[in-house]
Amino acid sequence: MKVEKARQYVVDSLKYALNPSSIAVVGASRYETKVGNKVVYELLKWGYKGKIYPVNPRANSVLGIKAFHTLKDIKEPVDLVFVAVPAHLVTEIVKEAVEIKAKVITIATSAFKEIGRGDLQNNITQYCRDHKLPLIGPNLVGMGSPYDNFNCGFIPYLPVKGPIAMISQSGANLLAALGTSQESHFGMSFFVGLGNKADVDFSEFIEYAGKDPHTKCLAIYIEGLDSPEAFVDSAKKVDKPIVVIKVGGSKIGVKAAFAHTASENPNADDYYDKIIKESGAIRATTWQEFLDVSLALGYQPPLKGDHIVMITNGGGAGLLSCDHFERSNLPLHELEEISPLLKQRIRAYMPMFGSPLNPVDISGTAGVIQYKGAFKQAFRDPNVDGVLGAICPTAVTDVPGVADAAIEVYNEYKDLGKPFIMICQGGQECSEAIQKLRDNGIPAYKTAEQAVNAMVALYKYGKKHFKK
Amino acid sequence: MKVEKARQYVVDSLKYALNPSSIAVVGASRYETKVGNKVVYELLKWGYKGKIYPVNPRANSVLGIKAFHTLKDIKEPVDLVFVAVPAHLVTEIVKEAVEIKAKVITIATSAFKEIGRGDLQNNITQYCRDHKLPLIGPNLVGMGSPYDNFNCGFIPYLPVKGPIAMISQSGANLLAALGTSQESHFGMSFFVGLGNKADVDFSEFIEYAGKDPHTKCLAIYIEGLDSPEAFVDSAKKVDKPIVVIKVGGSKIGVKAAFAHTASENPNADDYYDKIIKESGAIRATTWQEFLDVSLALGYQPPLKGDHIVMITNGGGAGLLSCDHFERSNLPLHELEEISPLLKQRIRAYMPMFGSPLNPVDISGTAGVIQYKGAFKQAFRDPNVDGVLGAICPTAVTDVPGVADAAIEVYNEYKDLGKPFIMICQGGQECSEAIQKLRDNGIPAYKTAEQAVNAMVALYKYGKKHFKK
Repeated sequence: MKVEKARQYVVDSLKYALNPSSIAVVGASRYETKVGNKVVYELLKWGYKGKIYPVNPRANSVLGIKAFHTLKDIKEPVDLVFVAVPAHLVTEIVKEAVEIKAKVITIATSAFKEIGRGDLQNNITQYCRDHKLPLIGPNLVGMGSPYDNFNCGFIPYLPVKGPIAMISQSGANLLAALGTSQESHFGMSFFVGLGNKADVDFSEFIEYAGKDPHTKCLAIYIEGLDSPEAFVDSAKKVDKPIVVIKVGGSKIGVKAAFAHTASENPNADDYYDKIIKESGAIRATTWQEFLDVSLALGYQPPLKGDHIVMITNGGGAGLLSCDHFERSNLPLHELEEISPLLKQRIRAYMPMFGSPLNPVDISGTAGVIQYKGAFKQAFRDPNVDGVLGAICPTAVTDVPGVADAAIEVYNEYKDLGKPFIMICQGGQECSEAIQKLRDNGIPAYKTAEQAVNAMVALYKYGKKHFKK
Repeated sequence: MKVEKARQYVVDSLKYALNPSSIAVVGASRYETKVGNKVVYELLKWGYKGKIYPVNPRANSVLGIKAFHTLKDIKEPVDLVFVAVPAHLVTEIVKEAVEIKAKVITIATSAFKEIGRGDLQNNITQYCRDHKLPLIGPNLVGMGSPYDNFNCGFIPYLPVKGPIAMISQSGANLLAALGTSQESHFGMSFFVGLGNKADVDFSEFIEYAGKDPHTKCLAIYIEGLDSPEAFVDSAKKVDKPIVVIKVGGSKIGVKAAFAHTASENPNADDYYDKIIKESGAIRATTWQEFLDVSLALGYQPPLKGDHIVMITNGGGAGLLSCDHFERSNLPLHELEEISPLLKQRIRAYMPMFGSPLNPVDISGTAGVIQYKGAFKQAFRDPNVDGVLGAICPTAVTDVPGVADAAIEVYNEYKDLGKPFIMICQGGQECSEAIQKLRDNGIPAYKTAEQAVNAMVALYKYGKKHFKK
């Protein structure tokens, strides 16, 4: 249901959704295939430190924890009520949650507006609004934060710690992002699935994320906006980069988005283009770009200008990059044009058949010394705004050594505020290098085009940021 | 140097480059940091079964193998001469290779045309042509085939076995593809880096791959074509799908491509568009698309029509897919339109809040039984041309179980000739499922857009294939 703008009481309550002292799990089953069982299991597994109150009218304990027959039986303060019971039982639970003065209610249950039960959903929502109980969902997968060992939902993994707040309307895609986080070290501050977002809306999570100290970038997946004005208003207030992917713009997608999260898309996709532009957010087209760009904006400062120097041991990665920079309307400049002095200096770190153009090809024979020297020269040069490095594993390339060198140089020069991005194209050793680079704050990617998309986003955000 | 069309003596000799009985490694060093040492080391490491003759004027043995001071000292037949000595020594080696009647010579050495020594390169090439000794390179990384445990070059890994012949002008990008092959089970029949392609050209490897029994799809990375007519002529002759990525089309890329592999790009990028179109090949834009599309064309039959049914347990993956299908000018049709009967039948495998639209959302609660049932119904329906499946790991999803079910159903119905592609979006368990699916001939990808690109390529190839 529409909100005119983010409601302060909701924004203030979201801390109870993301860092509650106590949780009641309504529908906590004793049977391990059931969602209500999984929620308790995952809370325990990932080390949630607060109190857990399983609620089940037919159980005295769930997974070894004392269970309560109703919410009202708990008799202790409950911050968060997590609901995983069939839809026809939800109204009653909501009333009890109000009665026990819960701070927030999240409803995982499906089969509301997305299958035509709009009235039921609206009635529940209105009841919550009348009683100032923020409702997250229904039809959501859950939420959590790695900083609090908090994994609340039917979610198999916690992400690794990092700067990105992931606010997603889709549960499935949120889960994909969490899996990617664990596997590829895409660091998150918190995550939440909004589902049908009957009550709590994007705007309120945006304002919460704006103040969250761990969040440096907001990554938002949208299927439909009920309250575009509130979205724009809140996004403008937040002085952190926001990346948006908006799906469901295709002809069949409009119907599918409704069936999925009851999102109504009466407007064409260019309507959303305008909204997103007005909000100051950066729009990604594909899922991969969404993740890649968010990672860069979370870890790196904005780019001040377009003097980007690329240093690579493989000409191929260089070519893929400079083509993609041009395709993205941010063509690389020749090194001669950026800094003739740097062109001379960098020659010391390449064999005679290397190329000091830009991309700077220090050749497949390059070792740690060559990389370190070339990186340092590039960072030090006052005409250089950002550095893109690429590692291609030849039989003589010390991939972990070069990754360590990149981290060392980055730590030496990061106070200069020049963005640094890496490409590690190849197999397992490159995946490991990418993890390590990311753990050290350097966005690193498998392909040239991903890294270029990331750098272009830093440039776009820079244009907004430095205009202020 | 230009060829009018593929030369038969070259095509016939390429088997000696990719499956030689004996190899002389000229410049085989005793020092393990040297390229010439790595070549021998990798041959041994990956289990090459033929004879290896290290050639080094100052060594009697290299890595425990008897070494020869010159090529002429070998006194046994040599199929392949692999050269890794400085550029000024190469002319002499070429003459000796002719003298000992080697079948093919490959020159890894850099510092020829790409740094302005075009005359030296041309003289060597002309000498080889005059003596009908095919020359691969110079400035190349190597070649090999997993079917013969053959890894010849400064290449740290062999790819896994599979249907894709990778013919790359860039060494670095070839290495990236080989790393991806090992890590993500991108199966290859053989691979070769052409480098400056002074003599042996794309056309000749295309014709060789056309006849190679392991090759089902050719993946070609081009920085520049010296002989576009020969390329088109050979590509047209081959009744296998060909995927091309052409780089160096950007303003700075034209210069970088020359510095990298001495590729001359006097013509704008749309010139290459025309050439590639005329050749019947499919052009990929990004590196990721290049790999993804090649994989699909290597493993799956072409798509006969646009009746694609998507089955997913996550609405988000469905939306990303249908948007990307529309963006790619191949919009999904509603299930109602494809087959009303299938729409009814498939309902049996989803809960009431699932959606039988298309994408068919069998919901996050779907287990092996639901997937298997939905897949079977889709394959069996005569109105369905292809099936796209998606797994999103919720806390109740049995990812390995669903992958196994997909493989089982695919094996049961693959004789129907309907393409099957999978999305497994998530973390480590999805990476493992992707490996297993690929090992069983099913192209599987991490993101929706990658899978859609793959399906679209099968459709494009189908339009060409079924027109015949």
